[in-house]
Amino acid sequence: MAKIDLSNVPRKTGSGYPEPYASMMSKRSYLRLGDAGGLTQFGANITILEPGGVSSMRHWHVHEDEFVMVTQGAVVLVNDDGETELRAGDCAAFPAGVENGHHFLNRTDAEARFLVIGTCAATETVYYSDVDMMVVDVDGVGTYTRKDGSPMPGAQ
Amino acid sequence: MAKIDLSNVPRKTGSGYPEPYASMMSKRSYLRLGDAGGLTQFGANITILEPGGVSSMRHWHVHEDEFVMVTQGAVVLVNDDGETELRAGDCAAFPAGVENGHHFLNRTDAEARFLVIGTCAATETVYYSDVDMMVVDVDGVGTYTRKDGSPMPGAQ
Repeated sequence: MAKIDLSNVPRKTGSGYPEPYASMMSKRSYLRLGDAGGLTQFGANITILEPGGVSSMRHWHVHEDEFVMVTQGAVVLVNDDGETELRAGDCAAFPAGVENGHHFLNRTDAEARFLVIGTCAATETVYYSDVDMMVVDVDGVGTYTRKDGSPMPGAQ
Repeated sequence: MAKIDLSNVPRKTGSGYPEPYASMMSKRSYLRLGDAGGLTQFGANITILEPGGVSSMRHWHVHEDEFVMVTQGAVVLVNDDGETELRAGDCAAFPAGVENGHHFLNRTDAEARFLVIGTCAATETVYYSDVDMMVVDVDGVGTYTRKDGSPMPGAQ
């Protein structure tokens, strides 16, 4: 069956970030729709932001394209250009290698949701714009370090 | 600017299919959002189906994953398993290499729209389930033939 049974897609919470950043993601959860549908070449996830929630630390991808479509409510996109409100139906694109970190905030009183598509590269490096952190991801296993590659307290 | 200005994305019509199949796509158009946002690793298109419209000939991809989310109205997904109605918010996934051709019909009286994500592989082969046609796509240039590779009348 090609249709994805959304009621059976588990809602995940938690973050692989070292603290204190992991705890900042407590109002974010997600549904891995692409995994549920057997896709392997790109991720297709619904991110759910409770009021006050943030989608991630502000970041940019070295190798992977990213695309977002808001599906419910409204979020604020923050990047080097400032803040931009996105409402249901609005879209944004983040080409690989563009050094302009982004994330999404829910400043409303209602839940917001957006679809996130991201290429699944075999290896990936992500830089975080506002903190001294990066992650190198190899076959789905991420290693967080400082931007000079030195160990990061609390990283696994 | 990461936000995509949907009002500036050109609405495309037409089909690369040989006749009589190209004319069957006259009630389908699309917006290439990923191209507008500078993405190259996957396509992110809004397909717009007028009442009575069909999204494509029924097909499956050898190398490219495909993901669909209905964003407006309702469509009927047709594949080897039969017919499935998808309404706004419903999603479907079509992993590469699964030999189960699909397409979407708009049997309602209102416009329907869905977001389609598909990997951009350097080379791709697509088989059409209901007619003796296939296409080999190399760097974005598709060549339509019969399934035995012989020329197809009207193909470019």
